[in-house]
Amino acid sequence: MLERESINFDTQICAVIGNPISHSLSPAIHNAGYAAKELDFVYLPCQVEDLAGMLAGVRAMHNFRGLSVTIPHKVAAMGLVDEVAEADRIIGSINTIVKENGRLLGLGTDGPGALKALTDAGVDPNSRTVLLLGCGGAARAIAFALALKTKVAELFLMDIDQQVLAGLASDLKAHTSTKIAAEQFSAEALAAAVGRADIVIHCTPVGMYPKQDVSLVPPELFHPGQTVFDIVYNPLETRLLREAKERGLKTISGVEMFINQAVLQFEHFTGGAAPEDIMRRVVMEHLTK
Amino acid sequence: MLERESINFDTQICAVIGNPISHSLSPAIHNAGYAAKELDFVYLPCQVEDLAGMLAGVRAMHNFRGLSVTIPHKVAAMGLVDEVAEADRIIGSINTIVKENGRLLGLGTDGPGALKALTDAGVDPNSRTVLLLGCGGAARAIAFALALKTKVAELFLMDIDQQVLAGLASDLKAHTSTKIAAEQFSAEALAAAVGRADIVIHCTPVGMYPKQDVSLVPPELFHPGQTVFDIVYNPLETRLLREAKERGLKTISGVEMFINQAVLQFEHFTGGAAPEDIMRRVVMEHLTK
Repeated sequence: MLERESINFDTQICAVIGNPISHSLSPAIHNAGYAAKELDFVYLPCQVEDLAGMLAGVRAMHNFRGLSVTIPHKVAAMGLVDEVAEADRIIGSINTIVKENGRLLGLGTDGPGALKALTDAGVDPNSRTVLLLGCGGAARAIAFALALKTKVAELFLMDIDQQVLAGLASDLKAHTSTKIAAEQFSAEALAAAVGRADIVIHCTPVGMYPKQDVSLVPPELFHPGQTVFDIVYNPLETRLLREAKERGLKTISGVEMFINQAVLQFEHFTGGAAPEDIMRRVVMEHLTK
Repeated sequence: MLERESINFDTQICAVIGNPISHSLSPAIHNAGYAAKELDFVYLPCQVEDLAGMLAGVRAMHNFRGLSVTIPHKVAAMGLVDEVAEADRIIGSINTIVKENGRLLGLGTDGPGALKALTDAGVDPNSRTVLLLGCGGAARAIAFALALKTKVAELFLMDIDQQVLAGLASDLKAHTSTKIAAEQFSAEALAAAVGRADIVIHCTPVGMYPKQDVSLVPPELFHPGQTVFDIVYNPLETRLLREAKERGLKTISGVEMFINQAVLQFEHFTGGAAPEDIMRRVVMEHLTK
């Protein structure tokens, strides 16, 4: 346990910035992690409209170490830091800023967090066909993590918006050597794609609280041996996951991606291993109360 | 006691900014005060070169409530806030910034802190002749607090630098109705002035650690009934104060001004009464260890 009274010149400061931010779990997760590892860090929640002003303050304070960046600043932040990891520049957003020798380095942990959630669950994406349902920001991050860090047999992309779909497909083809398929969403296309997929990753908000009684995938499309990963984490078990589990499929909740993006941020901020169990427990305590 | 883990969206953030700042007692004092009053505040020490950037960050963060401002930013900060109390504009520096409805208000608590130190010691400056030795920044703050908030019989100013002396004298005459006398420092002028003064306030660095074995005032100049107030607080008892005490005079250490400027800042930040005894104890613990 760390007291506020022990804050001193050497205490490192991190924060989550976004708007709104009042319901963010990040302060509870990161501060619990610092306490568990007895690290002299403190993590603040900051509702911020003026991103440039915020970053000026981060640069000015000797003890600011890092930021978690959330909506609506994930795209704009890329243009205000000094350096962005190449993959994240292509993805087009960042969720993490680390100050290193006065320079602000931007990067994303959503894609790597999703990948870690998969492998932690014992799912090896190599040589598998992966279907991404939805091609928005989170899907972009996950697609590039899979394309750059694994050897999937094929990434199959699906979105209702043809432009969004074609954009991600063309970016993946331009910057990776992964085999890409892309098809606009329809009931028939979905049935065919789910039929082919070893791993289905659902990256749309369908099924999220408070409209949790819907799912994009009719359960009769599932087949044995598939893994279904839903990036939605509220509810912890979406209708999609419940129906997949009822058919005997392996399922992964979005909460694992959420925990792992925070775990990876923690490691970028502190330079050491994160107390993953403690961080998971804090998330679960908040999401189940 | 407040844990870092309890930091949340409603936690108010304050900080001291300056350069250097590593030896500042302010974080220990203010955080102990918050803990004692169970206030959901946290206070950070920030070494800052880029004052404008820092203030941009303070404006951008929803939870930033206040700043203690120290060297080298006390003058420049006046030009970067939205409003400065009139007396502090004339004094020419601020040591406190409070964010109120998004606006940064600048003010000084050094002068009011010195005044509170006097009255807390049972010294009534009304109708008394007060000698200020030294006319730098601290003396300006004290002089205006006395001239605007009390009815001293006369403020007698003395400095070795004729320009600094004349500047303060003319500012006091232009903005207050207090009777002002001013004379350049010399052994003869000092003897005459100390002879006339009911209260001597020493506002130069003479006697400060590590050159603590000197005093500006030969002890034979003191007369019974005088009060001697030294704004130096390291050592807690300067040679000036020791010699005054040996002659039976009432003495006030600079530590009382230091504590009271923090007490008044605390009250501006939190809007409630400060736990003065706790704050004094923290200061004393640090200064005597």
